[in-house]
Amino acid sequence: MKMHQLSPAITTLKNCYERVAVRENEVGAFQYLKPTAQAIAECEKGPKGLLSGMPIGIKDIFDTTDMPTQWGTSYLYSPKSQADSSLVASLRKAGAILIGKTVSTKLAYFTPGKTRNPHDLKRTPGASSSGSAAAVADGMSRAAIGSQTAGSIIRPASFCGVVGFKPSADLIPSSGVKAFSKSLDTVGWFTRNIHDCALLFDAATQRQHNTDLPKSALATLRVNALIEIENIPLDNDVRALLKKSFYTLKKATARTAEIQESQLFCKLINVQKCIMAYEASRTLVHEFQFYKNSMGKELVDIIQLGAAIDLPEYLDALAFRDHALHTLTHTFFNQADILIAPSTIGEATVGLNTTGDPVYCRPWTLLGLPCLHLPTGKGSHGMPIGIPLIGKPKEDLKLLSSALSIVQLEDFKLTCLTGEANEH
Amino acid sequence: MKMHQLSPAITTLKNCYERVAVRENEVGAFQYLKPTAQAIAECEKGPKGLLSGMPIGIKDIFDTTDMPTQWGTSYLYSPKSQADSSLVASLRKAGAILIGKTVSTKLAYFTPGKTRNPHDLKRTPGASSSGSAAAVADGMSRAAIGSQTAGSIIRPASFCGVVGFKPSADLIPSSGVKAFSKSLDTVGWFTRNIHDCALLFDAATQRQHNTDLPKSALATLRVNALIEIENIPLDNDVRALLKKSFYTLKKATARTAEIQESQLFCKLINVQKCIMAYEASRTLVHEFQFYKNSMGKELVDIIQLGAAIDLPEYLDALAFRDHALHTLTHTFFNQADILIAPSTIGEATVGLNTTGDPVYCRPWTLLGLPCLHLPTGKGSHGMPIGIPLIGKPKEDLKLLSSALSIVQLEDFKLTCLTGEANEH
Repeated sequence: MKMHQLSPAITTLKNCYERVAVRENEVGAFQYLKPTAQAIAECEKGPKGLLSGMPIGIKDIFDTTDMPTQWGTSYLYSPKSQADSSLVASLRKAGAILIGKTVSTKLAYFTPGKTRNPHDLKRTPGASSSGSAAAVADGMSRAAIGSQTAGSIIRPASFCGVVGFKPSADLIPSSGVKAFSKSLDTVGWFTRNIHDCALLFDAATQRQHNTDLPKSALATLRVNALIEIENIPLDNDVRALLKKSFYTLKKATARTAEIQESQLFCKLINVQKCIMAYEASRTLVHEFQFYKNSMGKELVDIIQLGAAIDLPEYLDALAFRDHALHTLTHTFFNQADILIAPSTIGEATVGLNTTGDPVYCRPWTLLGLPCLHLPTGKGSHGMPIGIPLIGKPKEDLKLLSSALSIVQLEDFKLTCLTGEANEH
Repeated sequence: MKMHQLSPAITTLKNCYERVAVRENEVGAFQYLKPTAQAIAECEKGPKGLLSGMPIGIKDIFDTTDMPTQWGTSYLYSPKSQADSSLVASLRKAGAILIGKTVSTKLAYFTPGKTRNPHDLKRTPGASSSGSAAAVADGMSRAAIGSQTAGSIIRPASFCGVVGFKPSADLIPSSGVKAFSKSLDTVGWFTRNIHDCALLFDAATQRQHNTDLPKSALATLRVNALIEIENIPLDNDVRALLKKSFYTLKKATARTAEIQESQLFCKLINVQKCIMAYEASRTLVHEFQFYKNSMGKELVDIIQLGAAIDLPEYLDALAFRDHALHTLTHTFFNQADILIAPSTIGEATVGLNTTGDPVYCRPWTLLGLPCLHLPTGKGSHGMPIGIPLIGKPKEDLKLLSSALSIVQLEDFKLTCLTGEANEH
């Protein structure tokens, strides 16, 4: 009898399934889990590439040909899609192993699913990509994909303590992903480190980019910091972490300056809400007509709000967004390469009937800027908090390479992970 | 025995089905036709609204809950979708009767389906919304919806001699429509007159807008004309029609000026091609991997072309588009309310293994400008030609109201329709 030695990829995959066996009952990250044997067979025989054998969870609003999709609902169900959504197909082609569909809130809005925060089961994991963030945080998957319309990647990444990446608007195709608000919907992902995050970016864009910079690169970086927005709540521990990060970057980079423009950002938050409501009401027309009573109050409310908005008001909102982006590009973003700002008001909210507030994410989603959440600290209740890096429009590669440099600083170590260390 | 008098809506619907019975064998506009009895029952019992009883054909790349979708392919097939695509749901809610799925080219690119030009069965109807344009032109449907990524609404509208409308980019949700190139894909429709076109815009935006202007409005309109782009072919009859239209507008409007900027528009055409290829190759990943041999040479070529384009080249193309839009907004579009330009090089191309060239539509699709094709003339072979009106970004209402004024001019009468006059 010959002893087989398991390949590192198979070991990682088995570790993930073992963690699921131990934790899924409590965490509830998956809507559907692919049978272990099937995943292992795919790992042994599937295509090899940038992501060979990497276990990845797929948010339940992405079409998949080999797993069911139900969009976080009880009334829509497709046993298998005719085609994989574009991002899923790109990851699969690069060798990723899709281990399951992760829980989404109802149609990716605010009504929670079954997922709990792996750091504290009494707290929300954040939304709408709840299952994806929780699965990665808990070591049930090495990475997972999600989507953001308000704050649905950055918020759960912050609450669960993982790296969360929302690329620039429209940079990665969202074909085969349930739409909510065309101007805002952006696909992205969760990982346990920046390196994996960059690997997924390469797979999604079908190119191997060099995001590793020389150590000296940090010294030339220019950073702006938006510590808080007046009249928007912010917990002391997040403020303290931001200030500490600010001073650390001030010492290590070419220029770090604080910006204050609360009035503009407050207006951008309202403009984001207007566009999201208007577009949702013209997008989820079928669902609202036939499943209004099963949608959840939050979704009914935003669709009714949006239905009351007229075309001229919506066009004014779009025009304000365009104007603000133009202005910011020629001011703050002319003086800096990246921006730091709060990801969330504070630690994950207590309770499972809320998903927390995406308010600090709304401006960046509206402006289509790439955002990368780094889980670098803990709040006063021991829950993860962190710092998002926000890049210039379409400068995702610069953002990723900046992040790879920044996490080399002692204060930016990623400290929030639980579960097994399941990297290769 | 009591004689039932048919309602006008039922009469229109029956007229359409009668026309289908006579012509469909030759024209081949439909991929799927809803049974007459079912359509009549819906017309009798369905919701009443802006489009009560209006027969509408749906391009085969739009999801529908009551009709199959196969995206112009032989390898993808869904008997019914979980939800109607957003535009379909909005039209249905407004009382439209969806009579069938109209033929699309393969995945809405250049490989033709079975549809022939109703004016001359030896000629192409244009693409990719071939069936929609042909059905409306031939009186088999009162309206039909389609989509445009290069010139897939305006070109078939021109070749078939119907009104074709491509709204501003992102103004009407494209959720539930097969994606090709996110930055370019735009849903739109074909009608037999401008009034119906405006009705569909109202239904799609869920508001009744007043697009009827006083007759005097024409006298305040400012028009720019781009008669041709150097080095891009243009047939004499289209050039002659444009010049005639130019002089007619010069007499009737406040200002009509010719613009010449061939170098910019040539560059925009190439930029559109680059973005379309890059995005298609990152969007149709599943289809290319599994159905490459059934896709058609045209589709394989563009995906391979796009796969060779790197991220920086793509980003440069997007930046050039943004810069050009900014510049044009502050120059030509600052001096005029609408622009006229060629829709197509000439009349519908002879032969059914080509769909004609969308070259003159590419710049406007790239820039996201609303375009409305008016079928106002005939070419030297007796086939329809016409004039597109191009509006400023997001000024779709202004474009529709301008068109309603312009078609009151003798030279702008819509002269190309065949089939029964099936308006109410």
